[in-house]
Amino acid sequence: MSYVYERRLKKVSEEAAKKEAEAAVITSSTNIFYLTGYEGGGALIVPVDKDPVLLVSRLEYNRAKDTSYVDDIRVFAYPNTPLKVDEKPVYAENFNEALSKLLKELEVKKAAIETPSEKLKEILKKNNGVEVVDFTEVVPSMRALKDEVEMELIVKAIRVTERAMKKAIEKIDIGVSEREIAAEIVRAIYLEGELAFPPIVASGENSVYPHFSPSDRKLHEGDLVVIDVGARVNGYCADMTRTVFVGKPRGKIKEMLDAVLEAQIKAIESIVDGKPASEVDDVARKQLSKRGFVKFFVHGLGHGVGLNVHEKPTLNPVSKDTLKEKMVVTVEPGVYIPGLGGVRTEDMVLVTSKGSKVLTRFEREIF
Amino acid sequence: MSYVYERRLKKVSEEAAKKEAEAAVITSSTNIFYLTGYEGGGALIVPVDKDPVLLVSRLEYNRAKDTSYVDDIRVFAYPNTPLKVDEKPVYAENFNEALSKLLKELEVKKAAIETPSEKLKEILKKNNGVEVVDFTEVVPSMRALKDEVEMELIVKAIRVTERAMKKAIEKIDIGVSEREIAAEIVRAIYLEGELAFPPIVASGENSVYPHFSPSDRKLHEGDLVVIDVGARVNGYCADMTRTVFVGKPRGKIKEMLDAVLEAQIKAIESIVDGKPASEVDDVARKQLSKRGFVKFFVHGLGHGVGLNVHEKPTLNPVSKDTLKEKMVVTVEPGVYIPGLGGVRTEDMVLVTSKGSKVLTRFEREIF
Repeated sequence: MSYVYERRLKKVSEEAAKKEAEAAVITSSTNIFYLTGYEGGGALIVPVDKDPVLLVSRLEYNRAKDTSYVDDIRVFAYPNTPLKVDEKPVYAENFNEALSKLLKELEVKKAAIETPSEKLKEILKKNNGVEVVDFTEVVPSMRALKDEVEMELIVKAIRVTERAMKKAIEKIDIGVSEREIAAEIVRAIYLEGELAFPPIVASGENSVYPHFSPSDRKLHEGDLVVIDVGARVNGYCADMTRTVFVGKPRGKIKEMLDAVLEAQIKAIESIVDGKPASEVDDVARKQLSKRGFVKFFVHGLGHGVGLNVHEKPTLNPVSKDTLKEKMVVTVEPGVYIPGLGGVRTEDMVLVTSKGSKVLTRFEREIF
Repeated sequence: MSYVYERRLKKVSEEAAKKEAEAAVITSSTNIFYLTGYEGGGALIVPVDKDPVLLVSRLEYNRAKDTSYVDDIRVFAYPNTPLKVDEKPVYAENFNEALSKLLKELEVKKAAIETPSEKLKEILKKNNGVEVVDFTEVVPSMRALKDEVEMELIVKAIRVTERAMKKAIEKIDIGVSEREIAAEIVRAIYLEGELAFPPIVASGENSVYPHFSPSDRKLHEGDLVVIDVGARVNGYCADMTRTVFVGKPRGKIKEMLDAVLEAQIKAIESIVDGKPASEVDDVARKQLSKRGFVKFFVHGLGHGVGLNVHEKPTLNPVSKDTLKEKMVVTVEPGVYIPGLGGVRTEDMVLVTSKGSKVLTRFEREIF
């Protein structure tokens, strides 16, 4: 087993022990991937003083065996389609029953479980008298702080994303449709990874919607074009946005573009280990306020990025999170004015002890 | 308002009335799209004797106003990032509070809500004394039966998917990577729509995993290549799979390919209005059993397809669903033998009163 997985699993069993549980039960497929390298979902049981065990749907049995980095991990399968067969590796009628059976075998009397359902709690209580405590927040908090291996993979995903963004911007021309631009993006990303999320290409009147699916709309002179793209490479996500203007921006449009860039730069400058995330959001909002645009900034400033494209911490006015060294976050102010258009610029930033490091390497002023 | 949305909303208010509720509250974003044409999530309140109302995050306010097909629908926004502003359209502190406030205004004392959380139930009880009944199954059951407008859109998504599959198969050659094939697929799909799901291109030893992400692996003579692709067009999904053999299949591989096709054909022939879905699954399983392959068929036979790529009904050994006229389902037997490879063939089929109609138009035997 590679050192990184060993270390993460050890931390999980320590956290379970702190909750006086004999095992942690991880049910988020992303968390299971983080702890084992297997990404097909199910449950990972991490006993405090025994080896970890995977419980997966029958459909995923071979993939779990073959792709987990945990040496010789025991894998049990439950039938996603219960069959009238007594063959291995089918272990129990369904997921809840299988988990109950496994915890009994492992002599677990108190389990720390991620997002346990009421039904599962009932079954565990009835079958084995198992007490359940909540473990939902533990692994996401571990994941918020990126280690060196993770940083390398995140930067790789960012570089793939930048190459796709470059293709998209090169494609921009009068008469080209949003879909044609999106097609270039997804092709470029799939040559090196997968999509972290469906790309947004929103032009002209469509650019006022922060979320939008590429349409048949063709670009015109005077369009704002918001392009929001992210690749997922080896599990890790990237997320970046650029706004391009078709032509030479003047007047109010130029003001919007400048204001969003200023707000982004000021916000990034304010980032440092120990800073409350809401204060960074506030820096961007104050800056946009000076130009009269703050009421058109209708979303939060950013979010953590890692195995999920949205994860801890959250940067918005009511966030309770504090930025810490080794967190990776987006900084993405936006201004959306009905009748005029939308502007958003987004980069990924690593929080450091002294300040921050911008990870995205891509010109911001492309208008 | 177009007739189709009017008819669907009427049905929803009738179903709410049957549950003696004064309003239905729809919280699934796909169900909201089905009932209004707006796809950004939030809640749709359908009072029994008043006009429907949308409640959306502030970020989606303009999109909800502009893209809903329901004439002059009232849209209320709650702040996804609560702000210190008193401007419209922000309506309440957060989603739960906003919903509570709206139901009070609409004089709702009993609400039929999709997947209501315990927290929401508490708030509604405390604030307004509102009683909650479950509405989760109603709209998905409506959606299982496709009307003519939907059939047209589904067939369109299937045609886009077929064109992408054709590109993928043309690309197959010794030395070409799984990623390069996937890149052709996503480019073709994005020129006409979006992905219904990330494409699977699984070759050689990777083909034994029913779910798999395209890798750098290059095709060799003697590889099985499973390609599972679906486009989403105007909201509607398609789903199809073909298995290609690189070279001329013989022996056991030829047997697998033939057995899966036979099982698929027999299963499709057994489909008719009124047939239990589990029986159709059983036809495929019995056929594979004759060739000794049934224990390698590790998933269900199929699923409904519509606005979601997986929706009602489910075709597997324990399904309680009965096939009905106007349902659209996949039929996708598969055989996965470690050390040898995997084979799956999948088409979409419309259930009719007399039998079925295969909607996918694409050669099955491409080996």
